[in-house]
Amino acid sequence: MKYSLGIDYGTLSARALLVEVETGKEVATSVYEYSNAVIDEYLPSSGEKLPPDWALQDPADYLTGLGLTVKDVLKQSGVNPADVIGMCIDFTACTMLPIDKAGQPLCFDPKWRDNKHAWVKLWKHHAAQPEANRINETAERLGETFLKRYGGKISSEWFFSKALQILDEAPDVYAAADRLIEATDWVNLQLTGVETRNACTAGYKAMWEKATGFPPNSYFKALDPRFEHVVDEKMSRKIMPMGSKAGELTPAMAAKIGLKPGTAVAVANVDAHVAVPAATVTKEGIMVAIMGTSICHMVLGREPKIVEGMCGYVEDGILPGFFGFEAGQSCVGDHFAWFAENCCPASYTEEAKERGIGIQQLLSEKASKLKPGQSGLLALDWWNGNRSILVDVDLTGMMLGMNLNTKAEEIYRALIEATAYGTNIIIDAFDSNGVAVNEIVACGGLPEKNEMLMQIYADVTNREWKIAASAQTCALGSAMWGAVAAGKAKGGYDDIVDAAIKMARVKDRTFKPIPENHAIYAKLFAEYKTLHDYFGRRANDVMKRLKRIKEEQHS
Amino acid sequence: MKYSLGIDYGTLSARALLVEVETGKEVATSVYEYSNAVIDEYLPSSGEKLPPDWALQDPADYLTGLGLTVKDVLKQSGVNPADVIGMCIDFTACTMLPIDKAGQPLCFDPKWRDNKHAWVKLWKHHAAQPEANRINETAERLGETFLKRYGGKISSEWFFSKALQILDEAPDVYAAADRLIEATDWVNLQLTGVETRNACTAGYKAMWEKATGFPPNSYFKALDPRFEHVVDEKMSRKIMPMGSKAGELTPAMAAKIGLKPGTAVAVANVDAHVAVPAATVTKEGIMVAIMGTSICHMVLGREPKIVEGMCGYVEDGILPGFFGFEAGQSCVGDHFAWFAENCCPASYTEEAKERGIGIQQLLSEKASKLKPGQSGLLALDWWNGNRSILVDVDLTGMMLGMNLNTKAEEIYRALIEATAYGTNIIIDAFDSNGVAVNEIVACGGLPEKNEMLMQIYADVTNREWKIAASAQTCALGSAMWGAVAAGKAKGGYDDIVDAAIKMARVKDRTFKPIPENHAIYAKLFAEYKTLHDYFGRRANDVMKRLKRIKEEQHS
Repeated sequence: MKYSLGIDYGTLSARALLVEVETGKEVATSVYEYSNAVIDEYLPSSGEKLPPDWALQDPADYLTGLGLTVKDVLKQSGVNPADVIGMCIDFTACTMLPIDKAGQPLCFDPKWRDNKHAWVKLWKHHAAQPEANRINETAERLGETFLKRYGGKISSEWFFSKALQILDEAPDVYAAADRLIEATDWVNLQLTGVETRNACTAGYKAMWEKATGFPPNSYFKALDPRFEHVVDEKMSRKIMPMGSKAGELTPAMAAKIGLKPGTAVAVANVDAHVAVPAATVTKEGIMVAIMGTSICHMVLGREPKIVEGMCGYVEDGILPGFFGFEAGQSCVGDHFAWFAENCCPASYTEEAKERGIGIQQLLSEKASKLKPGQSGLLALDWWNGNRSILVDVDLTGMMLGMNLNTKAEEIYRALIEATAYGTNIIIDAFDSNGVAVNEIVACGGLPEKNEMLMQIYADVTNREWKIAASAQTCALGSAMWGAVAAGKAKGGYDDIVDAAIKMARVKDRTFKPIPENHAIYAKLFAEYKTLHDYFGRRANDVMKRLKRIKEEQHS
Repeated sequence: MKYSLGIDYGTLSARALLVEVETGKEVATSVYEYSNAVIDEYLPSSGEKLPPDWALQDPADYLTGLGLTVKDVLKQSGVNPADVIGMCIDFTACTMLPIDKAGQPLCFDPKWRDNKHAWVKLWKHHAAQPEANRINETAERLGETFLKRYGGKISSEWFFSKALQILDEAPDVYAAADRLIEATDWVNLQLTGVETRNACTAGYKAMWEKATGFPPNSYFKALDPRFEHVVDEKMSRKIMPMGSKAGELTPAMAAKIGLKPGTAVAVANVDAHVAVPAATVTKEGIMVAIMGTSICHMVLGREPKIVEGMCGYVEDGILPGFFGFEAGQSCVGDHFAWFAENCCPASYTEEAKERGIGIQQLLSEKASKLKPGQSGLLALDWWNGNRSILVDVDLTGMMLGMNLNTKAEEIYRALIEATAYGTNIIIDAFDSNGVAVNEIVACGGLPEKNEMLMQIYADVTNREWKIAASAQTCALGSAMWGAVAAGKAKGGYDDIVDAAIKMARVKDRTFKPIPENHAIYAKLFAEYKTLHDYFGRRANDVMKRLKRIKEEQHS
């Protein structure tokens, strides 16, 4: 029996999953919670208070997690390291960092450790909005064509926004950086000793496309003369397609993590993107929704299409031979967790404790007794801005319909419904722009945890929702890519389609829309759409103005 | 020393206050919490589930409370009942009930006790909206002029809306009722044995005016042919001005409550209206804000003026010789209590418990550390509809600006700010329509309890707020009217102005606007106004449509 290893780097933890190559059977898994988690209040080295919207990570957590979890799955399973034929990592993105000539993060260097720009900028670092604005305005002014591939807007979360923020605010860090690199490619560099750059993050997060490469140097120069040669000076123009082999495990790293030197390492990948084949999807017309703290929506297509506010489409960005379309919602599981933590009355907390269940389980239980529309509540799911289709981090949450009898479970359900309406907006945008969404497969933590939520999504979207069988689809997807990097000759696969047939499954239980629920939700969605456009398409910019006042009052 | 007795009937309790006539010194007070409180879920007699928006009371609570509290203040103070020269009651309004020929509430009669329409309809009974709509549409169609005195709209809370609902839904109860009467006048009937009707509720709640009386019978006929003679059959055209003597305490009632037969009883009154002289205000240009679960705004003027959405103006309705203008906000203290009960996390409840303080005190403490605008939140204070100036019970709450770091104290403060914006809308409406608001005096429970709230009101309205010295302004006001009903010859006063000079005071501590806070609040108020008009003036009727869907889903 041969095995492949998937390593999934999430926002708060890293997970290793050891999988039988022939069957997809998951034989062992191990999770490491990052000791520094998300750094959004104080810089660990100096205690410096971070400005609003900052979110950093400590790359030491990535290496520690790698060693501990890989050794743990080997120990748990008793699998012989020689039978592990391949591995692949996937990561949050754009999560990027500056490194030195030796490949070490600048924040490991005592000289730079107290400079916050030397640390990893996590995907949800939102402080580069001024740079994103400049990137967008300059692209529009110069008539750059790449904008259209990204729904018309580059996000503050993406690579060049973050890179430009380093240049703006810490030109010394920028100058000291030998490379600026995605964390996923950086971990691969540690594994293999060679720098590779993956097409997925390059395409989705760094304005690169297969046919034309990066935007011209003249564009970068227009952003800042010092930024003209950013690609050649700090990055690479050699971008590798998904499924190819990045290299082999170095002896030093093999010793550290307990695998054999020479083990095939696939080109690094992104969490949401590896989930697609792991959710059985290897053709067009099917949306994969990776549902956790946020939702990523992935669809394959045969042709490029322009869809408003999508995060981007990238040729070969998900699977070779397809255009991979991605959209996203930035506040889903986070939303419900915020509510449970900040807005749930003591009597509920006590009831949950007495019954030995989680507070969200209790809220779901109470909320599942409500009919659609029965609360009279409607929310806009913008507690963390709006990614698709408005691409606007300055939007904020809204709820209306409250009265003096409104209960916590009604608000909780309204927040869930709001995220379902957000998903429906995205499906409509794809569907009406030629990217068909005929079926949906969900994966991630939420579908495992909340049946009411899945039924609401089915009712709102009026589509059947299937659920990927694996509870850790991302890690499984990475293991599948690891098997492809190893190749058939070594006991793996030559093609991700073959790997998906053998290694990926959906559950028997699906969620089908209930017509009378959909009828109500169709009315509520129409109301959502009106408010979405009123607040989101600048009929009333109150959310932005309040945010400006807030920033002034904080400073 | 002579004494006067004020009895204040609130939403949840009755309070008796014994006052020295010469000085206004409060010598004893006693509170009775109604055993049946607000009946809004199940009818006590039958257990019948009440429909949405119903709010009833049990008139037995009024009599029980009367006996217990009056005896208690006499006992506490040791005052000789012979020295109590006068008394007056004030009440919530419109709070009305059907009674039989003997003056007994129909709900006391076993034959009618299980009929919900036989009980007292409390001021916040909101189920007569269809009738209110008919009253307004018919008045507009027939060109009735009374509408303009009420800001263009009659509320579902008012007398004829409630009376017409009885006729619509329970014609047998309507037929069986010898009279339909305000609870305040009914208690006076119990005290004196004679039926009197006060100008205040007739004017503010029953479309009566001094010059022309009630609307013509033809109008009532147009509402329903059976309603044509409602005034003559179920009410009275003899309306008595404030300050006059309704009668004298009957021997039977005197024995029950421990006073002397023949004690002067003033014409019954309304809680908010008696508060005006008790807050020292006996002339035009000064707003009295009675701040508790809701806010009533009272201003005196010398001429009739049309102000959008005011609850009404009534000649002699507050003080003889003045037009009394009233406006209102239906959700203030209720709003904050709802939040504290339903949306405040367990950790806060625990902290409050540990420190031995109330949850709202804790929230206020945390919220008072925030600067204006610092939370980024903005709310519309419509959790209980909007009384002034939109007169629309179908409006609901709205909040926006939330993000994943939003804390309970920020929401709490935003709700308080929203009610301050609501007050400012009302002040602007008065001020811009010729009813000057040069000064403000607040009274009621809130100013006693929450200094942060008062400062926010001062900052938002950019006006100094004074506070009435008495913690029970309504009961004091009633005691003042009781002293006027007794008259100077008996040791009282011939005039409420004289009574106010001797018996009413404001505190030394006032709340002055802080210019830099007002500058921020002026911006936030502009945003509030835009959303107020968008959701409240029918640019987007989403709140009404959601309420319809909610009602359908409940039924």
